[in-house]
Amino acid sequence: MTDSYSRRSFIKASSIALGSTAIPVTANVASAATEKALASNPPDATRQLAHYVVNSRWSDIPDSARYEAIRSVFNWIGCCLGGARHVTTDRAIAALAEFSGKPEASVLGRPERLDIMHAALLNGITSHVLDYDDTHLATIIHPAGPVASAILALAERNHISGEDFMHAFILGVEVECRIGKAVYPSHYERGFHITGTAGVFGGAAAAGKLLGLNEQQMVWALGIAATQSAGLKEMFGTMCKAFHPGSAGQNGLKAALLAAKDFTSSNGAIEAKEGFAFTYSDEQDFSQITDNLGETFEVTSNTYKPFACGIVTHPIIDGCIQLRNEHKLTSDMISRVSLRVNPLVIKLTGKKAPQTGLEAKFSIFYISAASIIQGVAGPNQFTDAAVRDAETIALRDKVEATSDENVSEEEAFVAIRLNDGTVLSKHIEHAIGSKERPMTAESLEKKFRDQAMSALPERQIDDIMAMCWEFESLDDVGDIARATAPA
Amino acid sequence: MTDSYSRRSFIKASSIALGSTAIPVTANVASAATEKALASNPPDATRQLAHYVVNSRWSDIPDSARYEAIRSVFNWIGCCLGGARHVTTDRAIAALAEFSGKPEASVLGRPERLDIMHAALLNGITSHVLDYDDTHLATIIHPAGPVASAILALAERNHISGEDFMHAFILGVEVECRIGKAVYPSHYERGFHITGTAGVFGGAAAAGKLLGLNEQQMVWALGIAATQSAGLKEMFGTMCKAFHPGSAGQNGLKAALLAAKDFTSSNGAIEAKEGFAFTYSDEQDFSQITDNLGETFEVTSNTYKPFACGIVTHPIIDGCIQLRNEHKLTSDMISRVSLRVNPLVIKLTGKKAPQTGLEAKFSIFYISAASIIQGVAGPNQFTDAAVRDAETIALRDKVEATSDENVSEEEAFVAIRLNDGTVLSKHIEHAIGSKERPMTAESLEKKFRDQAMSALPERQIDDIMAMCWEFESLDDVGDIARATAPA
Repeated sequence: MTDSYSRRSFIKASSIALGSTAIPVTANVASAATEKALASNPPDATRQLAHYVVNSRWSDIPDSARYEAIRSVFNWIGCCLGGARHVTTDRAIAALAEFSGKPEASVLGRPERLDIMHAALLNGITSHVLDYDDTHLATIIHPAGPVASAILALAERNHISGEDFMHAFILGVEVECRIGKAVYPSHYERGFHITGTAGVFGGAAAAGKLLGLNEQQMVWALGIAATQSAGLKEMFGTMCKAFHPGSAGQNGLKAALLAAKDFTSSNGAIEAKEGFAFTYSDEQDFSQITDNLGETFEVTSNTYKPFACGIVTHPIIDGCIQLRNEHKLTSDMISRVSLRVNPLVIKLTGKKAPQTGLEAKFSIFYISAASIIQGVAGPNQFTDAAVRDAETIALRDKVEATSDENVSEEEAFVAIRLNDGTVLSKHIEHAIGSKERPMTAESLEKKFRDQAMSALPERQIDDIMAMCWEFESLDDVGDIARATAPA
Repeated sequence: MTDSYSRRSFIKASSIALGSTAIPVTANVASAATEKALASNPPDATRQLAHYVVNSRWSDIPDSARYEAIRSVFNWIGCCLGGARHVTTDRAIAALAEFSGKPEASVLGRPERLDIMHAALLNGITSHVLDYDDTHLATIIHPAGPVASAILALAERNHISGEDFMHAFILGVEVECRIGKAVYPSHYERGFHITGTAGVFGGAAAAGKLLGLNEQQMVWALGIAATQSAGLKEMFGTMCKAFHPGSAGQNGLKAALLAAKDFTSSNGAIEAKEGFAFTYSDEQDFSQITDNLGETFEVTSNTYKPFACGIVTHPIIDGCIQLRNEHKLTSDMISRVSLRVNPLVIKLTGKKAPQTGLEAKFSIFYISAASIIQGVAGPNQFTDAAVRDAETIALRDKVEATSDENVSEEEAFVAIRLNDGTVLSKHIEHAIGSKERPMTAESLEKKFRDQAMSALPERQIDDIMAMCWEFESLDDVGDIARATAPA
């Protein structure tokens, strides 16, 4: 693979699972308690990260990271367009746009142009509001939101090239995910929404890279980020959840801008006794920050949701859609749908007759029926109107689900009995979108288009997608942001 | 006392210690561990606070609270003027002013006018940068910063009366201090700078009151505040410390503005299992939030630093200045200065020969000498130049300090031996500025003037102070903010 990818190379490359050089995506089980970790004299993690980010060169970044970074940004821009018209976005703009400074940056997919701080906030919100963005499975961080929202706004103002943008993006993701791994899962279990709390470091590092901070300034930027770290899991189910990556992007950008003017901060904000890791988490593993820095790349572990609902339902949706497409199924052909799944699936999504779009995300019965009838499970399948569709309700009532402890959380068995007695079945071991079966470029494009249709006409969407695939070759990344403005 | 105070009534009233209706200022020792607290089914603290703030009327606020609120705001404005020209302020403005929106609010004591969000940030920074602002001793929160900075900016834009401002201020202080008491000291010991983390709730509640939020919106405002709560003690000694009250004010204001547009949040952001109190603290006592709400007022427990250094040195400074004034002492009259103090004093401030202004705050030897020679211990006594003064160095070397466990942290014994053999001595039981011996209006004015001189001419300072004492009778609080602009 060369430094520059064409859309064609993406289509080709993404049809095979790429080898990853990152640390395996098992959860980080940090065993040392706070006292023990302190006694063991933590490494100077903050300075090591700063040194790395400041000194990294584009030529140091391997193809595997560049490849996944473009897919990450592609997916992120699609999600921004999908959330552009959401009521959450409307209300944030209604509250804050009047305080915007110079309109130097785009809110993707919307007519408003805002100052770069507000644009970072808004694009972070839109990218997460449908719960449809990317996932770094080792930490459950949604990596692109806080990083891309910070630097796309900055890039639009400062005329940044595609290569510089991608370099900063990869480093920002590296920083937030490594810090996340150092405190996950204890930090998350304590109640912190890690996309906000760790994300702010990613936004700061990436923006700081684009601003050309020196090492001391980068240390300070990480410190100013640390002392703004925030986001509670209690906010799930409210507009504040999407506010977290937005706020992380905005505050990360602010941290970098302050550090660029020598606004001082701690020299050990991450590892000091009263720094981030010990204050925000009960367990710490600093080796997750410092080991193999510059050799492995967290962005290569990024994954994308093909379906706009909880990841636990994805194997079933995958199976239903495959059977539908292979056998050209319509609902009138079907007498019964039988699911065999891990007990967790029924526990989390066992709602029989959901009444709203949000409830529908917690009904495996509705989700299966809608997937078979429509062949997709995107945002349009989770509207209040979609849930009231008579054909879907009829098929939903023919779905039965069996709990089976021998079925893993990643797999599912789907059997569809037709009126003529035929039984069609499918065993999904890993759903599409998992690290084992990454979404292809075509499926990412379909997802992008599905979302963007709510904001923009089809021809404009095609143009934007084409620019996204050629991201590294852009002279001015702002072009892509401006290209998303409604005509 | 009536609803409106003249400067005269302040001078009179503040010469006696006022009775306080607040809960005694002993530290809150919350005994229940998280699990136990959760099992005991926490009260709906968030909604109770919101209900109280929304329904409170100005006529419900007792004179004792109104009285101390004016002194708090008076002291806060003086501190803002004192920090206006600090390098921390210069750098924050250099980094962020270019992103300001409409210049609708003042940075007190400076020519810049910024949008209300940036003004809130800057005035919060300036008010804390000299470590000279107010202290709520039960929580070590510096209450005015996050609250006044949020609502003065808003008031300047929305033309708010002095009464409405003071009402919102008192309620904001009530909210932040009660939430602080519910988690102090565990939260603080964990590493959080409580002025930032609890302050954001105060800024949100006060701004929300001025915006006329309904109860549900106020619940959301507290939730949006909770999910932005931040500030690490690791930042002490860096510019980020002053950033905390600024950021809390700015983010509290943002929370209220979002809630006013129905941006939704949790309904139990403070007490929920993954809400603020359980996530940010290991111990909780929700009764500190809900008990006697509307009957006691935390603002009546506010205190003001007469000296620009750690509170542990204040009894000594007080004693030195009293002896100096009573006996018209000059350094050439003195052969020895003997201090007898609690061991903590020498542990914290035992530096013999400080070389910088910052180091001087940690030298009881320097502090005593400077206090005797100059009769004050304000910011001017803690500059690098002051520390190099030959006369002060000579007297400093005549100071000896004895550690005595029988002397409490609040008291000190000072003995000054003159060249003629006379020994003058003073026993301070509670220093000036403590709750037992509150600063008089005259001493608050002297402190105000001392600080404001760095930014403004004397006549302008007099005018501002006069307006401050008549705060409640102002038709438009913005007048006072604009009156601080340099000519």
